[in-house]
Amino acid sequence: MAPLRLGMVGGGNDAFIGGVHRIASRIDNRFQLVAGALSSTPQKAKASAAALGLDPDRSYGSFEDMAEAESKRPDGIEVVSIVTPNHMHFPPAKAFLDRGIHVICDKPLTSTMKDAHAFADAVTATDALFFLTHNYTGYPMIRQAKAMIAAGEIGKIRVVQVEYPQDWLTEASENDGLKQAEWRTDPERSGAGGSVGDIGTHAYNLACFVSGLRATELAADLQSFVPGRQLDDNAHMMLRFDGGARGMLWSSQVAPGNENGLKLRIYGETGGLEWKQEDPNYLWHTPFGQPKQLITRGGAGSGPQAAAVSRIPPGHPEGYLEGFANIYSGIADAIEAVRAGDPLPDDAALLPGIQAGLDGMSFINACVTSSANNAAWTKV
Amino acid sequence: MAPLRLGMVGGGNDAFIGGVHRIASRIDNRFQLVAGALSSTPQKAKASAAALGLDPDRSYGSFEDMAEAESKRPDGIEVVSIVTPNHMHFPPAKAFLDRGIHVICDKPLTSTMKDAHAFADAVTATDALFFLTHNYTGYPMIRQAKAMIAAGEIGKIRVVQVEYPQDWLTEASENDGLKQAEWRTDPERSGAGGSVGDIGTHAYNLACFVSGLRATELAADLQSFVPGRQLDDNAHMMLRFDGGARGMLWSSQVAPGNENGLKLRIYGETGGLEWKQEDPNYLWHTPFGQPKQLITRGGAGSGPQAAAVSRIPPGHPEGYLEGFANIYSGIADAIEAVRAGDPLPDDAALLPGIQAGLDGMSFINACVTSSANNAAWTKV
Amino acid sequence: MAPLRLGMVGGGNDAFIGGVHRIASRIDNRFQLVAGALSSTPQKAKASAAALGLDPDRSYGSFEDMAEAESKRPDGIEVVSIVTPNHMHFPPAKAFLDRGIHVICDKPLTSTMKDAHAFADAVTATDALFFLTHNYTGYPMIRQAKAMIAAGEIGKIRVVQVEYPQDWLTEASENDGLKQAEWRTDPERSGAGGSVGDIGTHAYNLACFVSGLRATELAADLQSFVPGRQLDDNAHMMLRFDGGARGMLWSSQVAPGNENGLKLRIYGETGGLEWKQEDPNYLWHTPFGQPKQLITRGGAGSGPQAAAVSRIPPGHPEGYLEGFANIYSGIADAIEAVRAGDPLPDDAALLPGIQAGLDGMSFINACVTSSANNAAWTKV
Amino acid sequence: MAPLRLGMVGGGNDAFIGGVHRIASRIDNRFQLVAGALSSTPQKAKASAAALGLDPDRSYGSFEDMAEAESKRPDGIEVVSIVTPNHMHFPPAKAFLDRGIHVICDKPLTSTMKDAHAFADAVTATDALFFLTHNYTGYPMIRQAKAMIAAGEIGKIRVVQVEYPQDWLTEASENDGLKQAEWRTDPERSGAGGSVGDIGTHAYNLACFVSGLRATELAADLQSFVPGRQLDDNAHMMLRFDGGARGMLWSSQVAPGNENGLKLRIYGETGGLEWKQEDPNYLWHTPFGQPKQLITRGGAGSGPQAAAVSRIPPGHPEGYLEGFANIYSGIADAIEAVRAGDPLPDDAALLPGIQAGLDGMSFINACVTSSANNAAWTKV
Repeated sequence: MAPLRLGMVGGGNDAFIGGVHRIASRIDNRFQLVAGALSSTPQKAKASAAALGLDPDRSYGSFEDMAEAESKRPDGIEVVSIVTPNHMHFPPAKAFLDRGIHVICDKPLTSTMKDAHAFADAVTATDALFFLTHNYTGYPMIRQAKAMIAAGEIGKIRVVQVEYPQDWLTEASENDGLKQAEWRTDPERSGAGGSVGDIGTHAYNLACFVSGLRATELAADLQSFVPGRQLDDNAHMMLRFDGGARGMLWSSQVAPGNENGLKLRIYGETGGLEWKQEDPNYLWHTPFGQPKQLITRGGAGSGPQAAAVSRIPPGHPEGYLEGFANIYSGIADAIEAVRAGDPLPDDAALLPGIQAGLDGMSFINACVTSSANNAAWTKV
Repeated sequence: MAPLRLGMVGGGNDAFIGGVHRIASRIDNRFQLVAGALSSTPQKAKASAAALGLDPDRSYGSFEDMAEAESKRPDGIEVVSIVTPNHMHFPPAKAFLDRGIHVICDKPLTSTMKDAHAFADAVTATDALFFLTHNYTGYPMIRQAKAMIAAGEIGKIRVVQVEYPQDWLTEASENDGLKQAEWRTDPERSGAGGSVGDIGTHAYNLACFVSGLRATELAADLQSFVPGRQLDDNAHMMLRFDGGARGMLWSSQVAPGNENGLKLRIYGETGGLEWKQEDPNYLWHTPFGQPKQLITRGGAGSGPQAAAVSRIPPGHPEGYLEGFANIYSGIADAIEAVRAGDPLPDDAALLPGIQAGLDGMSFINACVTSSANNAAWTKV
Repeated sequence: MAPLRLGMVGGGNDAFIGGVHRIASRIDNRFQLVAGALSSTPQKAKASAAALGLDPDRSYGSFEDMAEAESKRPDGIEVVSIVTPNHMHFPPAKAFLDRGIHVICDKPLTSTMKDAHAFADAVTATDALFFLTHNYTGYPMIRQAKAMIAAGEIGKIRVVQVEYPQDWLTEASENDGLKQAEWRTDPERSGAGGSVGDIGTHAYNLACFVSGLRATELAADLQSFVPGRQLDDNAHMMLRFDGGARGMLWSSQVAPGNENGLKLRIYGETGGLEWKQEDPNYLWHTPFGQPKQLITRGGAGSGPQAAAVSRIPPGHPEGYLEGFANIYSGIADAIEAVRAGDPLPDDAALLPGIQAGLDGMSFINACVTSSANNAAWTKV
Repeated sequence: MAPLRLGMVGGGNDAFIGGVHRIASRIDNRFQLVAGALSSTPQKAKASAAALGLDPDRSYGSFEDMAEAESKRPDGIEVVSIVTPNHMHFPPAKAFLDRGIHVICDKPLTSTMKDAHAFADAVTATDALFFLTHNYTGYPMIRQAKAMIAAGEIGKIRVVQVEYPQDWLTEASENDGLKQAEWRTDPERSGAGGSVGDIGTHAYNLACFVSGLRATELAADLQSFVPGRQLDDNAHMMLRFDGGARGMLWSSQVAPGNENGLKLRIYGETGGLEWKQEDPNYLWHTPFGQPKQLITRGGAGSGPQAAAVSRIPPGHPEGYLEGFANIYSGIADAIEAVRAGDPLPDDAALLPGIQAGLDGMSFINACVTSSANNAAWTKV
């Protein structure tokens, strides 16, 4: 089957996440990038398009032009990836959704709650599909963990421990010309959350995704350790979940020695599970009263949910890009089903969409509100 | 030099911690156990004394008898170890302190704040020395970490992450005749804290010991997950320290797959440190902008503070008993200095005493109070 | 720039390595698969081609037809990947090389020494380029290790320890219809080496690639532990290298609990390096007399050679497919340079070619010969 | 029961292993050191005895005097530990054995085969017991591994991989006044083996102890990498065992980054086991076709053999000294049984004695002989 025709908004030459989306779209040969509004700087947009081998006619100066033009072409894009800073997610998304073009959007959803609600309205109003790249949910052993919990293998959940420490903002890199640091620490572009918006949302999303629980309230203590920084660079919080489970979440960008230390531990009445993003092919299963078991991706104890999103045998590590590609390929399945008039495949329910986006925004909002109220319990 | 004459209160045949104290006292040949009131059950006291090779004349039926008799013997004990449940720490301690006999006591200090204050008064009123066995402070790499932080090797501290998960109370073992579980979950004998009293105090003490910081307030959310359990078996909390550092602490007895997972991570402006009790011969040092460094006990990068409490070369692991012995041997140094009329050795400042005991009681109290107030910030 | 036009011989639906080659070719968008002789079974060839979206006209029933037809098309393939069992590497390779089409071939080179020499002649006789996919050499931290050794960071090498244990042939799976097991244990299709041919060659190649040393002789003891198996499933050997370094190599397919446990440790006069394929983003550097250092891909201490073959920041793991893609993308660089009449890029020297293929065959031959002579030292 | 009266030959102030023996003897309170010939330098002997609190009358200037005097005292030593360099094991051992005093001796047995045979004769000729401190056999998880193999839990053994890398002789420390390095590299005092004698014997002993196999022949390649060094500082070898199992052994003192990296892996027809000395509380069990299992000392899956030699619960690490103490306490059990006229306890069969000593000497001899014959297979 021919790959889906993909466009991209943002993702010019020096952007990190745009390149990731492109590789992820390509790994399983399900998408072909054919159009882009790759930068708000025309020069850079053009150069980036050329470097990517795009037809110059389909390298646009703005997302508005792109939406307009592509929606009229018979071979126009079927789906667009939006990989701009947070405050620039909603405007292009709306432009494409309104024209019936499916949208894949980087997280968090937006930079403001107001935009988030408008975003949800735009998704409701269209038949096009919408996906948010909470990419860590695409890791095979995360799917495995979710399936094990759903099957009751660790019993009713009591405790959720999740953390995402980094160290890249230990110093005031935003003052040293590091673009990524500039916008990530700028409330205008990032929104109200610093570490909680960038990585706390990932941790929160993953904890809920795997556990199957919904948080009801949280108590957060946010800090900006680097002098002059406007957004939090470290956040501590306690969580309460539906059904009585409790949790803790730590996000940090100032913890030297940590790169992308996303780690999830979940404990139930009869066992536990533990997973680390930096070593994603391993899942510890600790049934109470038995030896600890190390399940490897595709190895013994690894089930069909992991297999469905694996490409190579156990012992040959898959990584971040493959996990990201699993999201993209799942999206391709969903879009192709829609195109064929078929019902969405079962696994489409695993793909983060507008609800995950709203949940993430609620989470950021609750963190900031709670912290402003001296860590008072705040509804999520 | 002849070993110090040691007595013991508690620690009969089936107790865990009594045996640990005895081995710890023996490893460096600094103590000789010569007397005991090993159990409140006369039969058991006698049998235990025999098993330990004590002179039957010096196996006592009560700590009162022991204090009275030993204090009158010319060869009476110089120091006593108290290894009873928490509510039985203070009465014997007072009996010996009042007679000028040095006291080594298991933690936490007491089961009530009232006893704790009376305990402090008793220590103030005597010339005898008092020590509390926060034994984890005796691990060589903990001493190393403390020294590195004091020397500024990770800069001003921002974040303290500490946890102590276990799993031994995952089920209601207190109803199955497990004695250790019975008294640990009984407020009469343990005091107001369950996991926070038993292991949370260790985590808290270690975080303060290594960081050199004092906590000012905490917000705690305590749970009793096992139905019918009266004390917390899981606790989540956020901490604020003098000077602006922030922290999180998790203690749990219901996290399957965790045995004694005490773990401490401290991050400063220029680096981080990480240590795990179950692998105690390793210390990670993560200077910002440099490769992560693994310092081994006695290996390159391990300094004099670790060497002072090590017995064997790097790569031959020391463990829990050796760390415990370091506390005992430090106590022996202190007692011998006092006996000789010398000033206390510098390292005596590293030994936990009555202040650590009061701090631990304040911590337990603050946890319980905060949690009862829906995790309101509470002064420690 | 348009992707290179790629063909494939072998790699039909149920083959493992064909799919790997295809993903690797796609990750950096440097190749487009446009033709194939995907199976010797016509039905399967057709179905596989359809599944991959190939133009049916360019799905061939034999490599001969494909070589003939493609070499005549103006838009014919520029390069072909050969992913058949070992005994079927040389015939197709020769067919394409003779027509000036570049060849990428799976390892080991052939199933016989005779074929290997003829293969070398065919490579010599053509202007087309030839590459052998010793893919592990593409891992960023392997490139890093090689660069560090070349820069003298561990001093003159003394000891090389390399191993590649697996467990997938612990039982007689070749009798249970597992196709991969069938041909891997069949001397007609695999050649004289079992584990030494399949994975020993990888271990040997990697040790030489990273160390920069050449082995001079080896003493090997090969076993076929599974009754009835014709080829070795476990091999022990000692190695001697140019310049006095010594080594050991272990390959096994019968070591339960090992998936793809390729591990390389090299020790020089002033330091050591250690790397494991299953955790490929880490490289231990152990300078003598300093703390052990853990270098992460792209993190502090990771240099330009690793960066040149990395796509994403440290802490987001890359895996096997990305390492494989590094070989493919390096090949694309080389082919494009040739096409442009430019000299080969410097990094082309890092790509395994016919010499690596001959070395691998010599290695297999020496292993089998030595073992047949009771592990007598045998020239490589 | 009163501790056994222990004497010591060697082990003066600056010796490493003497202190280890003393702590090991003390941990379980089974021995009391009452006499010693602690150094051949009278001054040092006296000072060491004083530091240890020995009665000056029982600090002897020579082992001959000590054997003579102690054997005549009614309260004379019951057992003696010999912790001198290798060439000085046999003379004192014989002196005590001939007088019916039990002997505990450090390994390897002697520095020459001739002495070894005479040693065996002396053991045969006496009723006294003889023990060799292959201390690693005392680790609880080693006992566990041995029991699991004996119970068939990994099936018939195919492959044994054992290694013991260190780095302390990476440079020519023997020329820098390091006493330990001086005698370890001196054939007069150490015997014919360097690394193979000091640590290779441990690796070999442990492999045989756990597997229950006997080696039949080996092919060894020994090196002295440091210029001027007379004994091997690195050794590679292949092993063949009774019943068809094969193995590899690596010992090294010149592998930077390795402290005491003794590691044992054993693979059978149905599973594998893996253990590392530096993390001795863990045992990996890898049943074929099941998830890998991590058994912790005293945790689930850890059986009575480990429990018999454990003191504290899982998660509180025991180390090298406790493992060593297990040998000592096992010896105490045996001696007390003999004293009581009882049969030896079952576990006495686990204690290394004269046969282990002869086996170790045969091993060293075979290594040196094989290597001198260009790694020819040599009977062990």
